[in-house]
Amino acid sequence: MKDFTYRLPTRFVFGHGAEKKAGEELAALGATRVLIHYGGGSAVKSGLIGRLEEDLRAHGMTVLTLSGAKPNPRDDKVYEGIELVRREKIDFILAVGGGSAIDSTKAIAHGACYDGDFWDFFCGKAKVERTMPFGCVLTTSAAGSESSNSCVIMQESTLIKRGLSTELNRPLIAFMNPELAMTVPKYQIASGATDILAHIMERYFTCETEVDLTDRLCEAAMQAVIRAVRIAVKDPMNYDAQAQLMWGGTIAHNETVGVGRVGDFGSHQLEHELSALYDVAHGAGLAVVFPAWMRFQMKRHPMRLAQFANRVYNVPMNFEDPEETALRGIEAHESFLREIGMPVTMKELGARTEDIPKLAAKCKRNPGTDLIGRAWPITGAEAEEIYRIADR
Amino acid sequence: MKDFTYRLPTRFVFGHGAEKKAGEELAALGATRVLIHYGGGSAVKSGLIGRLEEDLRAHGMTVLTLSGAKPNPRDDKVYEGIELVRREKIDFILAVGGGSAIDSTKAIAHGACYDGDFWDFFCGKAKVERTMPFGCVLTTSAAGSESSNSCVIMQESTLIKRGLSTELNRPLIAFMNPELAMTVPKYQIASGATDILAHIMERYFTCETEVDLTDRLCEAAMQAVIRAVRIAVKDPMNYDAQAQLMWGGTIAHNETVGVGRVGDFGSHQLEHELSALYDVAHGAGLAVVFPAWMRFQMKRHPMRLAQFANRVYNVPMNFEDPEETALRGIEAHESFLREIGMPVTMKELGARTEDIPKLAAKCKRNPGTDLIGRAWPITGAEAEEIYRIADR
Repeated sequence: MKDFTYRLPTRFVFGHGAEKKAGEELAALGATRVLIHYGGGSAVKSGLIGRLEEDLRAHGMTVLTLSGAKPNPRDDKVYEGIELVRREKIDFILAVGGGSAIDSTKAIAHGACYDGDFWDFFCGKAKVERTMPFGCVLTTSAAGSESSNSCVIMQESTLIKRGLSTELNRPLIAFMNPELAMTVPKYQIASGATDILAHIMERYFTCETEVDLTDRLCEAAMQAVIRAVRIAVKDPMNYDAQAQLMWGGTIAHNETVGVGRVGDFGSHQLEHELSALYDVAHGAGLAVVFPAWMRFQMKRHPMRLAQFANRVYNVPMNFEDPEETALRGIEAHESFLREIGMPVTMKELGARTEDIPKLAAKCKRNPGTDLIGRAWPITGAEAEEIYRIADR
Repeated sequence: MKDFTYRLPTRFVFGHGAEKKAGEELAALGATRVLIHYGGGSAVKSGLIGRLEEDLRAHGMTVLTLSGAKPNPRDDKVYEGIELVRREKIDFILAVGGGSAIDSTKAIAHGACYDGDFWDFFCGKAKVERTMPFGCVLTTSAAGSESSNSCVIMQESTLIKRGLSTELNRPLIAFMNPELAMTVPKYQIASGATDILAHIMERYFTCETEVDLTDRLCEAAMQAVIRAVRIAVKDPMNYDAQAQLMWGGTIAHNETVGVGRVGDFGSHQLEHELSALYDVAHGAGLAVVFPAWMRFQMKRHPMRLAQFANRVYNVPMNFEDPEETALRGIEAHESFLREIGMPVTMKELGARTEDIPKLAAKCKRNPGTDLIGRAWPITGAEAEEIYRIADR
């Protein structure tokens, strides 16, 4: 178990009608001029944006809105947001939506406090030194951005998608009402759960030994998420399944199950290239990439993949051939992904064989190396091999 | 799953030599006049107190010390601390030790900011409205006080032991070095782990349905703690076992595994009377009371106790007779407690049969009722019955 320093500043307001407390809670945080940043029309049509505006105004705040946060959030919206925040002297940004709106908000908040180009943070030219207060009303369970230290933005002109990790990425407050996730399309619910599971798996597949407690917490969270999404894709109105998914998404990516270990996140890098090039749902891309990555890693790390198979999918351990257990676990995971409606091959995702060399070449390396991923790193050539495993 | 609001403000500095960062971290928190509050001589003899004093002074702080925090911490030490804090204009209290030093520190911090008698908070006469900054250097894994919202103090003159729950009980910072726990006597390691498990079990035994995620997190944490303490009582120098225990103790009692549900805590009330009367280790008292409480509850809640048996102790489920599974789980838990050297009967604890009516009578009721415990409440007469089950 590795040494760590950890603090989670986010205040969680979770449950039925959680977003109705936004006015009261933001007032307590000292917000006076609030920018609500959201995605498309559904949050407006459902009346959510209107209700939030009304509530914040009733608590004495001035409210502006910025729509258009997209999946795989773009830099152009971030620039627009930064300008708006500065011009209108905004002192709090409230994201409404999922990872896209929240990540876009994080980038706006950091950028508004920085004299240079915010993209400097994403290409490694500058470090985030300060930010401004922001929070979120979560409407979909997936990215975990409501309390994670992560943020992913795509540069529109280059289709380069880059992540940024900093403690300043953690929102001050998150309003989490599982009822709001009930109207999310089933494909997106499944894609979100796949992302949640991937966040746990990225931490679970580690070289760190003697991490029994966090191993078991990871396994617990994976089992609960797998159970909940099976219910939610059949019956999206099931509050309890949505609640398990929503809280599961949060703890999957805020280190509750990940302290004291180095995770991998190579699969996330491989996926970023897929969603940047084909604009597919991040979770759907992960459904394709992650099992292929596991098949590739199986020969190198059979025991940990056997542990995954045995403890998460209840595959009986084959003590004479752990690799067979590992393989059955990967197959069980693929079956589950198909069951909830996810693609598991490049073809099903709409990706082209001829793009594979380009995908592998663009994939982000660890600084100064050809390697992708931390705990179980792979080379660029191996990345290409993994895309080919997925290209069935 | 119940609605909840949750925020954990504690900053955790965890791992090898964690306490060496105290000067740097407390300076960053703005501390200038620090009171180090600790228990007996062992922290002085080991040089820990001296090293901390030196480090804080090297960072420009004025340092005072207050020793004598005892297990089942007493009100007289709290009064002494409050006076000292006021007289010396202390602006930060650093507890060094386990639950006793930390709980005593919490009470001092609240009391120093209150014009009346601090005991008002513990007997329900007043609510804690504000407190002063405090943190801790944890030296033993048990109470979880390093980030819990709990605090337990005993009134010396009456032997009344009372708990206080408030969000203001959560320390600002916790330095957690598992190496410091290596010199703790084996009996105390076992007693600490029993307390940790009890904190999880108090949350696990609930009437809340559809809490699959937190159920599984509880089971994960219990399995890891059981495994780690088995190693630690045989080999206290095993860093990794001590690390699992230390972090396990933290998450057991800070709602990481308990959001969205109502726990019971009746067993804790039953135990408080034992340790108040006989001055036994809190964990040892819990080792006696908890299995008896489970035996009593078995007929009312066979399925949840069967789930505990099956998922925590791998007892095969008897589908024709779940109560038999439940009983085998309780027996497995008792075997485990004996294995790590804990008492499991009143006699082994040194408690007297003739005291049972007095114990049951003194046990704290839920306000305005004869009931003890929240999720699975019992009457005073049933409390007596549980003590008698334990009196083998």
